[in-house]
Parts: sequence; C-alpha cells; structure tokens
Amino acid sequence: MKDLKDYVTTIPDFPEPGVMFRDVTSVIQDAEGLRLAIDSLVEAVGDPDEIDVIAGTESRGFIFGMPVAYILNKPFAMVRKKGKLPRETVSREYDLEYGKAAIEMHKDSVKPGQKVVIIDDLIATGGTVEAAISIIEELGGEVTKCVFLMELAGLKGRERLKDYDVESVICYEGK
Amino acid sequence: MKDLKDYVTTIPDFPEPGVMFRDVTSVIQDAEGLRLAIDSLVEAVGDPDEIDVIAGTESRGFIFGMPVAYILNKPFAMVRKKGKLPRETVSREYDLEYGKAAIEMHKDSVKPGQKVVIIDDLIATGGTVEAAISIIEELGGEVTKCVFLMELAGLKGRERLKDYDVESVICYEGK
Repeated sequence: MKDLKDYVTTIPDFPEPGVMFRDVTSVIQDAEGLRLAIDSLVEAVGDPDEIDVIAGTESRGFIFGMPVAYILNKPFAMVRKKGKLPRETVSREYDLEYGKAAIEMHKDSVKPGQKVVIIDDLIATGGTVEAAISIIEELGGEVTKCVFLMELAGLKGRERLKDYDVESVICYEGK
Repeated sequence: MKDLKDYVTTIPDFPEPGVMFRDVTSVIQDAEGLRLAIDSLVEAVGDPDEIDVIAGTESRGFIFGMPVAYILNKPFAMVRKKGKLPRETVSREYDLEYGKAAIEMHKDSVKPGQKVVIIDDLIATGGTVEAAISIIEELGGEVTKCVFLMELAGLKGRERLKDYDVESVICYEGK
C-alpha cells in the first residue's frame, strides 16, 4: 500500500531556489490519496466526543476540514480572508514575509465554551493558525488541537504554537 | 425535521438594494445542516459508477465538493483563481459584472475520456461554471452533470448551461 508521502509532489526550487515545494493538490487528484489523507486527519483529530467544532482556513483548510467535519458530524467554522464573510465578523492581522494579511471568522461560528479543532493542509511558520487561534479565543472557544496534513519542521511553526496540541500526519525536515 | 432552506440565512439588500443574499455559511455552521447539505448533493450527483472525477471551484466548491468526493471515493479536481496552482495548468477568462476574471485547472487533473461532475454552492449567471466546463472539455473530459446546492432561477444560469445536465438542491425564484 502506498504511503501518504508517495502522493505528495515535490517541486524543487519553487517558488525560489532552495525551497522544496510540497504540493498537496496531487494527493487529492487521486481517489486513494484523497481517502488516505482524510482518514489520517480523522484519526489525528481524535475522540469526536471531545470536539464541538471543526475550523479550517481558506482555502486548503476547507478542502481538508470539511470532509472531517462531515465524518465526525460536527459544524464547520470558516476562517476566511478579510471581506468575504457576509455577516458580523472578528478579524486579525498577521505578518507575512512581505507585508500583512488579515483573516476573519463569523462571530456566531464559535460559541463560548466550545472545543475547536483547527485543520489545515500545512504548518509552515504557523502565522495563519496563530491568528485563527486568537480569533477563536476572543469568541470564547478553546482550541484543543491543531491538525495538519504536512509539517515543514525547519520553519518551526510548532515552537510558535508551543502552548497548543499540534499534530501533523507527515513531517518534512526542511523548509 | 428541518428543511435545508431553514439553514440558509437570507440577508436582504446585500450587497446592494433589491438583492436577497443567500448565505450558505450558516448551513455548514450547523452539524445537521452540513450533513443534510452534503447528503443532498451526493443524492443529486447520482450513480457513482458513472463518474470518474468530482470538480469544484474555489472556494465554496471546495467546501461542498470535497466531502462528496470522499463519500463517493473519487478524485477531486480543483478549479482555482489564476496563479494559485503550482503545476502546469489550462486557464480560461470569463466576464464578471464589472471586468474579467480567470480560473484554471491542472492539466493532469482530468484525463481524456473521464466523466466529470462539477459541484458548487450556487448557480447564479453560470459564468464561472461555463468557464470550468470549457477547461474540462479542452482536457478531454466530459461534463456529465453540474450540481449546485442553491439556484437563483431569476439569473437564468440554467439557460446558459442548456446543453448540460444541471441539478440544484434548492431553488429560489428571484435573483
């Protein structure tokens, strides 16, 4: 049986020399890769009785988070780039390599006391998920776990999220 | 039991006077709404033996298409805004109310002869899905069905797609 890593396409020197780009789109372009990815995430998420909400960031967090929410019978809270959600939101700015970005969530997407698991395709520096955690905590939710399909260990996102339970399905040593 | 329409939030006069904005985010913020939406889409998609690929457009097509792909054990082909996919693509421009936009797909996401079902949250004028169909056909695929959670019948997207099998789970008469 193929391993999940076998479905990931690595594109060397993209987007710049020295970077090994890990392309997750090839995983879901294969029915078995897709199934393996989602089933692995469900397993990493853990006991569904301890979770109230699955949250995912635009747009690859939607891709991996929504099937998990369906399987575990949980609501899905969208974390979107600023300006795309139609109702009242809470937003957060965060730093990019060059400049800033902002994400937001609907105010009613997480209720006080709810236990939230964040799902995304990749943890790199951890900046986006840190901003998402900050919004969820302002809404009164508790982030019980952050689950990623892939981790780029060299970028040390795990250190940035050291106060949280972080799990990744596959880990690459580099950046 | 609640109907799927009960989970849709309608925001009057948004984004401009006279428009009834149908907000699908409230459907997936509820575990039962989410399950009902996905199960209804799976039923509308039909016989899985007649489908090779599920395709979905960024980003709400990802939200509804991925769980369907998982359930039916099919690969998922992403239709993204131009410039976001890392490998070789085919792209298409299409008209917006003001100006133009472009979407693209990976060249290897649909293979010649494959039967493709496109899933999206909403059919309005049908411009985006028409562009997606054009890409899929250039790749040699056959679009056997277009399935939408919501249809705004007043915008006549169905007429634009008259050569295709179009199905929507819920239909609103207006715009």
